[in-house]
Amino acid sequence: MNKLEQLYEGKAKKVYSTEDPNVVIVSYKDDATAFDGLKKGTITGKGAINNQMTNFLMQQLEKAGVPTHFVEELSERETAVKKVSIVPLEVIIRNISAGSFAKRYGVEEGIVFDEPTIEFSYKNDDLHDPLINDYHAVALKLATWDEIDTIKKYAFQVNDFLKKTLAECGVTLVDFKLEFGKTADGTIVLADEISPDTCRFWDSKTGEKLDKDRFRRDLGNVEGAYQEMARRLLGK
Amino acid sequence: MNKLEQLYEGKAKKVYSTEDPNVVIVSYKDDATAFDGLKKGTITGKGAINNQMTNFLMQQLEKAGVPTHFVEELSERETAVKKVSIVPLEVIIRNISAGSFAKRYGVEEGIVFDEPTIEFSYKNDDLHDPLINDYHAVALKLATWDEIDTIKKYAFQVNDFLKKTLAECGVTLVDFKLEFGKTADGTIVLADEISPDTCRFWDSKTGEKLDKDRFRRDLGNVEGAYQEMARRLLGK
Ligand SMILES: Nc1ncnc2c1ncn2[C@@H]1O[C@H](COP(=O)(O)OP(=O)(O)OP(=O)(O)O)[C@@H](O)[C@H]1O
Ligand SMILES: Nc1ncnc2c1ncn2[C@@H]1O[C@H](COP(=O)(O)OP(=O)(O)OP(=O)(O)O)[C@@H](O)[C@H]1O
Ligand SMILES: [Mg+2]
Ligand SMILES: [Mg+2]
Repeated sequence: MNKLEQLYEGKAKKVYSTEDPNVVIVSYKDDATAFDGLKKGTITGKGAINNQMTNFLMQQLEKAGVPTHFVEELSERETAVKKVSIVPLEVIIRNISAGSFAKRYGVEEGIVFDEPTIEFSYKNDDLHDPLINDYHAVALKLATWDEIDTIKKYAFQVNDFLKKTLAECGVTLVDFKLEFGKTADGTIVLADEISPDTCRFWDSKTGEKLDKDRFRRDLGNVEGAYQEMARRLLGK
Repeated sequence: MNKLEQLYEGKAKKVYSTEDPNVVIVSYKDDATAFDGLKKGTITGKGAINNQMTNFLMQQLEKAGVPTHFVEELSERETAVKKVSIVPLEVIIRNISAGSFAKRYGVEEGIVFDEPTIEFSYKNDDLHDPLINDYHAVALKLATWDEIDTIKKYAFQVNDFLKKTLAECGVTLVDFKLEFGKTADGTIVLADEISPDTCRFWDSKTGEKLDKDRFRRDLGNVEGAYQEMARRLLGK
């Protein structure tokens, strides 16, 4: 499997075409951004950790019944994945109030919800990824009702699996963002990544943040938090 | 039925207590505001028109199976209504893209949706009434799942009824905002108002705006639009 042409360079990853039109290679960078791209930095070792953590979790999610884009880990930072057309909805599940939710609705962080919540943001940089509900997404033809039902079902399955897996490592899953894509035949699969860039992880005992909030909020020991998550989840 | 004490003065109405603890009197003002209260003005005759249009529509909605707060019209501007505790969600139905929807999602106004959409805003002036979805509303205990299901069902019934009634007057119903409340025994009823302040009405032939957008956008003939809607719907 070889990288042919760079198709896209995002803020955290590059995407390359391969000989197989249905497969792309994702290459994880150490670059970090926050606040709609306003804050920029480097988190040394992040690319390798996010790549390996994503692959570890996606392989287990496949076994648990959630189809994913994962094909094969090629190196520390590079993975072959099914090429998909990304559904332009960021899917966010929350177990505990934090971040933009707490700010938007004027509540403190740390409220444990009776049930997890799900929300969508319209993936559109020019519009700053606005919150959108399922009626609007269908009206704007971003997805069909069937696709939205499938995505919701998978997202809650991911939450159940992640919550349990992380609890066993002494980590509380606060919230996370997923992206889904459609393969050539229209099948919905989990795509993108699952990592400290895209989840909020709190140490179950101390409440210490073990995710990108350390970078966003200048809490220090950013690399250490990513390494600690790799140690707990991947044993390295 | 007499006004005892003023309980609340809003931007468009005053609410008074009465001898009956389950009944309040709503008094409609000619005051108009827009853009989160930044723009202020007067629309002469608006209070009387909004009061009578709301009552006309609510009485018909009752017959069509949607419970409302309406009790009795007392005068041109004043109506006795069941006292409710307002569910802190503004309920917006859209048949055609316009206003904040078009702006938020970067689409033109005038897109006719295949199906109507529904959305909620959290009624909270300090937070500027942010968009909220049903999961969040339940997580924040603003309403129960049962209440949300009931509210959605009634809101779509209101849309069906209003669309039809307005079409017969040569008016296209673009979108509108409803508020629901709970009576002393917990019953959900339609409350607040249904008027050119809270709906977008477009002349079916010419597309001319016959609602508060004339005030918001300085289109002139604001009073004339309210009077024209009163003429078409109430025959006066
Ligand atoms: N299996 C896949 N096939 C095609 N594209 C994918 C796949 N998985 C993820 N992507 C997309 O590849 C890009 C990954 O790059 P990165 O995460 O750096 O993007 P980003 O800067 O977050 O920008 P974006 O707003 O596009 O997500 C994203 O656009 C993501 O949606
Ligand atoms: N049946 C009812 N019982 C009690 N309150 C009601 C009832 N119907 C409407 N209300 C409330 O009365 C107030 C009407 O005033 P008005 O419409 O002027 O308020 P507003 O300026 O729009 O402010 P708000 O943000 O509170 O709606 C609103 O707060 C509305 O929710
Ligand atoms: Mg990304
Ligand atoms: Mg009001």
